[in-house]
Order: sequence, then C-alpha cells, then structure tokens
Amino acid sequence: MTGSLPDNFVGDLRALFGHRLDLGEATRRQHGGSESHFPTVASDAVVYPLTTAEVVALVRMCVTARVPLIPFGAGTSLEGHVTPVRGGVTVDLGRLDAILSVNAADFDCTVQAGLRRESLNAHLRDQGLFFPVDPGANATLGGMASTRASGTTTVRYGAMRESVLALRVVTPDGRDIMTSRRARKSSAGYDLTRLMIGAEGTLGIITEVSLRLQAIPEAIAAAVCGFSTLAGAVDTVVDCLQAGVPLARVEILDDVQMRAVNLWAKLNYPEVTTLFFEFHGSERAVADQAALTSDIAMAHGGGDFAWARRPEERSRLWKARHEAYYAALGLRPGCVGWPTDVCVPISRLAECILETKRDLVAAQVVAPILGHVGDGNFHVIFVVDPDNPAELANAERLNARLVERALAMDGTCTGEHGVGIGKQTWLEAELGEAVDVMRTIKRALDPHDLFNPGKIFSL
Amino acid sequence: MTGSLPDNFVGDLRALFGHRLDLGEATRRQHGGSESHFPTVASDAVVYPLTTAEVVALVRMCVTARVPLIPFGAGTSLEGHVTPVRGGVTVDLGRLDAILSVNAADFDCTVQAGLRRESLNAHLRDQGLFFPVDPGANATLGGMASTRASGTTTVRYGAMRESVLALRVVTPDGRDIMTSRRARKSSAGYDLTRLMIGAEGTLGIITEVSLRLQAIPEAIAAAVCGFSTLAGAVDTVVDCLQAGVPLARVEILDDVQMRAVNLWAKLNYPEVTTLFFEFHGSERAVADQAALTSDIAMAHGGGDFAWARRPEERSRLWKARHEAYYAALGLRPGCVGWPTDVCVPISRLAECILETKRDLVAAQVVAPILGHVGDGNFHVIFVVDPDNPAELANAERLNARLVERALAMDGTCTGEHGVGIGKQTWLEAELGEAVDVMRTIKRALDPHDLFNPGKIFSL
Repeated sequence: MTGSLPDNFVGDLRALFGHRLDLGEATRRQHGGSESHFPTVASDAVVYPLTTAEVVALVRMCVTARVPLIPFGAGTSLEGHVTPVRGGVTVDLGRLDAILSVNAADFDCTVQAGLRRESLNAHLRDQGLFFPVDPGANATLGGMASTRASGTTTVRYGAMRESVLALRVVTPDGRDIMTSRRARKSSAGYDLTRLMIGAEGTLGIITEVSLRLQAIPEAIAAAVCGFSTLAGAVDTVVDCLQAGVPLARVEILDDVQMRAVNLWAKLNYPEVTTLFFEFHGSERAVADQAALTSDIAMAHGGGDFAWARRPEERSRLWKARHEAYYAALGLRPGCVGWPTDVCVPISRLAECILETKRDLVAAQVVAPILGHVGDGNFHVIFVVDPDNPAELANAERLNARLVERALAMDGTCTGEHGVGIGKQTWLEAELGEAVDVMRTIKRALDPHDLFNPGKIFSL
Repeated sequence: MTGSLPDNFVGDLRALFGHRLDLGEATRRQHGGSESHFPTVASDAVVYPLTTAEVVALVRMCVTARVPLIPFGAGTSLEGHVTPVRGGVTVDLGRLDAILSVNAADFDCTVQAGLRRESLNAHLRDQGLFFPVDPGANATLGGMASTRASGTTTVRYGAMRESVLALRVVTPDGRDIMTSRRARKSSAGYDLTRLMIGAEGTLGIITEVSLRLQAIPEAIAAAVCGFSTLAGAVDTVVDCLQAGVPLARVEILDDVQMRAVNLWAKLNYPEVTTLFFEFHGSERAVADQAALTSDIAMAHGGGDFAWARRPEERSRLWKARHEAYYAALGLRPGCVGWPTDVCVPISRLAECILETKRDLVAAQVVAPILGHVGDGNFHVIFVVDPDNPAELANAERLNARLVERALAMDGTCTGEHGVGIGKQTWLEAELGEAVDVMRTIKRALDPHDLFNPGKIFSL
C-alpha cells in the first residue's frame, strides 16, 4: 500500500518512471529512515529519475496533485532530512550520478547531483585534482550541497558554501534553472547558488552541481599528538592559525572517544584529548608547518608527535579518527548513535567543550566528543538505546543544554548537520525574526509547501 | 527643492534626523552621481543615520509613504548602483563607521556598514591581522558586501562572499535582523547572509558586518614580470595554480595599460603584457613560491623578475598597478572612465582577452585592459568623452561584444562590479529564468519595490 497517494496519481508516476517507480514497503521504509535516532516514516513512493527533464515532469505532476516531494541522496544526513513527515514521493537521485565534465585548467567539474564524493575523487585522482569537502559519510554531492556540508578539510579548503560554483535546480514552479555560470566568481544578481546550498531541498531539487577542485599537494604529512589538557589542545590550534600555519585538517577527539577507538580498533593510544593533524604543501612547506606546529603543541602540554608521510601510514595513523563513529557505537552494542553538532567562535571552544563534558559526566551517559577544532565545530555522539524513552529524553535534555550553551557563546545550533527535524526549535532561538524572512522566501517560491515540507521550520 | 517628496514626509524626516537631513542641491547631486559614465540624477534628500534604530524608523516611514530608499556607502560603485533612478531618500551610512569588536583569537571583527576598508586595516595592523578584500577603491564594508566585491587578493583569500560571517540588516518590513551568528560556519537555515551579499541594497539595508580576518603573513614578496605574449602570461598563472602555488595577488596589465602607467607615473617598464605578483607566507614558503613561479614564467616567455620585499619597495614596484585607473584616465585628459568587467573560466581567459584586444584595436578606442588573472576576471577601461554621443555609443557596442563573448565562454557579465543599471540586459542573457526566481524573492521581501528600485532587474 502507498499511503495517501491517489490511484490516478500513482498511474501517472508509473507512466513517467515505469519500473523506476518502487512501491515496495522495504524500499519505502529504507527511504524514510535515517542513520540517526529519528523514527522511520515510510515514504509513499520512491522514484529514480535519470534526467533533469524527468524531475521537471515529476515536479509539475506533484504540484498539480499537491503531493509533497522529498529529494534523497545517499540517506546519510543526520537530522531527519529525508523523513517524509507529511508523506509524498521520495525522489532518489542516486542514478543521476554521471560526471559531466572535468576542466582541469579551471580546477572545476560539473557532476549530476547523485554522484558520491568518493567516486568523484577516485575519478579525479589521475588528473592531480581532488574535491576536498569531507563530511565523513560517502554522501552525494547534491545532498552535501543541500545540507551545506563541511567536514575535516574545511579549515583549509572551505565548506560546500565555498566549493560550489553553480547548481542546476528544478524549482517548485517547474523551472529548470542554472543558478550561475562556471566563472570562478560573479556579482551578477542574487546569489541563488548560496540560497539553495543549505535549503535542505525545501526550495528546489538540485540535479547538477559545478564544483571547485583543488590540486593534490606535492606533499602530505599526518600527525597525532595527545595533550594533558583540553584547553592546551584547543590553544595549540588557535596559535597555529594565528601563526598562519595552513592546517589542512585538525581534528579533536576527547578521552572517551580515544578509549572507544582503542577498544574498537585494538589500538594503543593514550586515552587523553588528542589532535589529529594533516599538512599539505610542497615538501619544504610541509616540513615548516610541521616543525612550527610541533613547537606550538609542546608549549601547550602536547606530547610526542606520531608522524606519517606515505599514504598507507597516514591511513593507519588516522584510523582512530576515521572509525570514530563506529567505535563510539561499539561502546554499547545494540544501541544507536544520536550525533549532534554545534559550532562556536574558536575562542569559546575550550570552554564550551569543557562545560559539555562536565554535563555528560554528571549525567553518566556514553557520549564521546570529537570535532573540527579549526572551525570551532564539534560533535557529541549520544549512544542510546532507541527503545528506552528515558535515555532518549535524557539525550534530548543534554542536547538542549549543549545548544543553549553554544548559542550563549554567539555560536550556532548546527555547524554542518543542518536543521532538518531535530534543530527547528533552536533555529528560532538562534536567529529570531530572520526565520520569518526565510519563511517569506519559502512561501514565495513554494506556495503550496510541497518541497520537503516540515523541514527547517514550520510554516 | 526636493523633487517629489511630500511636505509632510520631509517634515517627518526632519523630525527624525534634524541637521542630519541634507536637502542642499550639491549634496543631493553628489549622492546621485558615480565614478563612472552614468549621468547624475540628484537624490530627493540625503540622511545620515547614526544607529540601526534610526534606519528602522526611516524604513517604516518610507514604506508608509511609499518613498524609495537608496543605501549609499562611499559612492565608489561602478554600475550606477546609487543613482536614485526613481527618486527617493539616499541613506548615507558613512557616519555609521564604528569598529564594534575585534576578536583576535577568532580572526573576526564586527563593524558598522559605513566603515571604510582602509580604516579597518589601519586599526587591525597592530594586532597582526588584516582584512584582505581589496577592490581598489577605499569603499565601505557595507557597500562591498552589497555589490559582492572582490579584487586583487581574491585568488588567495576569497571575495566578500567568503569573507562575511554575518550581517545586520533592516528589511523592507522594518525588521532588524542578524543573518547569522559569529561562528565560522553554520548549517542553520537559509543563507540570508549570502542572499544579502550582492543584492545591491534591493532586499534590505546592511547596518553591521561581521568579517573574517587573516593573519598578516611573516613574509611578503612582490614581483613584476613582462611577457612576450599574453597567452604566456595567462598560462604562467594557470600552471602556478595547478602546481599549488598559493599566489596572494596576481594581476595582469596589457601593453596599453603599461604605456599609460609609464606616462602617468614616469616609469620605465617594458610596454608589454605584464604580471604583478605578491607572495605571502613564512620566509621559506615565500622563497619557494617565488622560485617556482619564476621557473614557470620563464618557460612561458617571461622576462626577468623585478623583486621587492620591504613595504616601501613593494609599494614602488606595485605603483603601476595601484595607479592604473588614474593612469588610464591620464591618456585623455578631460575624459571619463567607463570601466566594465567580465569573468570567464581561466582556461578561456587568454582567448577572451585577445579577441577583446582585437576588437578595441580595430575600433581605435583608448581602452586599457587589466585584471585579476587568477580569477579569470578582467576589466576594460573605456576612456570616453562624456559629451560625445558617438563615443559613448561605440563604447556601448564594444562592451556588448565583450559581454557576449564572455557569456559564450561560460563566463559572467560581471565578476565584481555588480549589475546596477549597466548590466541588466546581460543578467537576463546570462541566467535566463533564474532572474524570474530573483524577482519572486524581491517581490516577496519588498512588495512595494522601494529598496533601491530599478537596480539589478526591472520588476
């Protein structure tokens, strides 16, 4: 059964998509779930477009019938973004995954929205190029644009906000628009590209993405260093940035996360606050950056640096970071992760993490902390039993305290996960009447509230 | 006389602003002019708010009376942005010029919109920080945000788009909103910050700007190099970027511009296509960058590099670039500049400039070319007699051919000057139906079309 969809509408969907319309319950439930703690809500129907023209036809059909559309990439978002809370058709863009062009001299490429970032990087490697934004999950580029994703390399290379040149978008009135040209910069009219980045599918469906690429550096070095205090670790990063060290990656893992990693991956790291670094540049530049960073760390109570230069050694060294999420879940087999994220000005980061840790310790919950310390962005992964309402309520309470703390420090309720279902209350607390300006834009562009309704804010 | 303003409205303005309401003709004309070729249209009244609350009161008053508002910074924009084409009140933000906070550890600051960028940098210098965006003119930060300005350092540090953290904006419904918090990044809701950047005052009046700052590098080196061919100069830059050289500035000046500079500043540069470089980093990093760049330039027909390290030497070396606009005007005393700008993917830049040069030579006009070659962005400065309609028509024809050429190369009709009055036809040609999406947003946020009406597009 397909919930509330009228029979004739399902017939029209079938006519448009043929066997690329899937009404099976497993598929509908799989597209209404999440990698986080949100309850699954089965979609009414799942379609797999192969062209932008099919998306245009689908949008017109849905608007006429007043049926919601939920764009779906890899399903790796963390705030319930793809849950069809008001029913409707899930538009799985996973088969729109072609690389349309790579312009090496321009350091850019254009890809279909359903392409995954690891596939893109595998394709680019031989040309000496890479796409740096790395949120952890092997997400689609369209999904990453929609949630304004960032990640481990943002400190050096920027987030999706800085990395997208142009988008092809199907708007709620069925227009197929390009938001910009392929030029590196432009002052031509409103920045529709940035308006769509982070709109979480509520203003249109992205079908193509033009991206800025980076040259693979001549040399890459990785390093890991434990600290006697959390403040020492954060101050090390502040001082490095102040000294102009162009850190390519700098991640913080707290003692709980390090214990989780040691257990999970049978490693033997000191179970203290730890920084994971990566340096990019010429051989000499990397050596300079590394030496300066090492000096700064020592002055802030950092221990010895473990170093790695060759790719396989770097992977081994960073294993603890890469497997952090699974390691956290491994602390309580059978439980699920409830990852939350905030971002504060970096001068408040140590204080924000320390107060949060005190809260978590007092509440006796299993909740490692890790983060992109160069951006002031960190995550708490509550590891909770999804069938225990008291645990869920407790995580919710601690999450609320975390977000309130971040807001009180002039921070944001979400640095990179987005609002989705989970952060709506906090968006209002953070931006006040600005949210009404967002609503005005939403109503103007999607007057029937059909594009991923119920996400970011209620109308 | 104050044109079309009703008497009682002028009385209300007087009550709100007192002697900070100026109805004198000289002031009204000065606020309706431009540094470019656009005819002056006197404003009906000029006011100088001292607080955001005054701007809110003014907006409410103007909306009630249906009187247009034109925000005004330093008046240095180049596409007629501040010309009150439909009359109204010019809101001169120049007295809203306080530095509200500098957070050195966070590499950010918050300033009022009327502060000029050189004042900000003078204030920051002692703290080892600087604000990199450099459009040439000593513009206000609010004005630079409004036109999505960029300039000589964008290749390394990004444009206003990448450099603004948050804006305080008074919207047409009289709301006083903050578009974001001070955190380095956020995924919280629509990116109203970026929507306002480049909106040219048509969606709100910016009263405060939070900016990302950069650490002043340990070492800075400048270099100048002439090339036997224009293609050789452009290919040098492409190869440097491909090799990962983090050029801080790289500017191209054509032979006509170099001749103008030699005449103007009594210099003795070879009158050939010339690149002006700046390198930032540690002493060793700068030495590495410089050596690599020099090798690459030589392989592309570059001549000897002239080098400078100390500030006064760098200034002398870059004098030709800094005085380019006045030098161009100096080619025809008594004439005015009509500066236009386009931006293309860098792989098309040499071709675009060469075709444009052929056009200019064939038309026998005085029109130097210079540009931010690392971004694919260049300017033609038509030096025209403003009283000669045939010359103006000729410049218009050549400008049209330039923009059409850029669009045919997947470029944009304006890389950094904005649309204003001058580029409206080309915005439609560039983005098609996307401009209708912009109009929908404009109508929703400013239903009476009172905020800088007649700019970017007609409704």
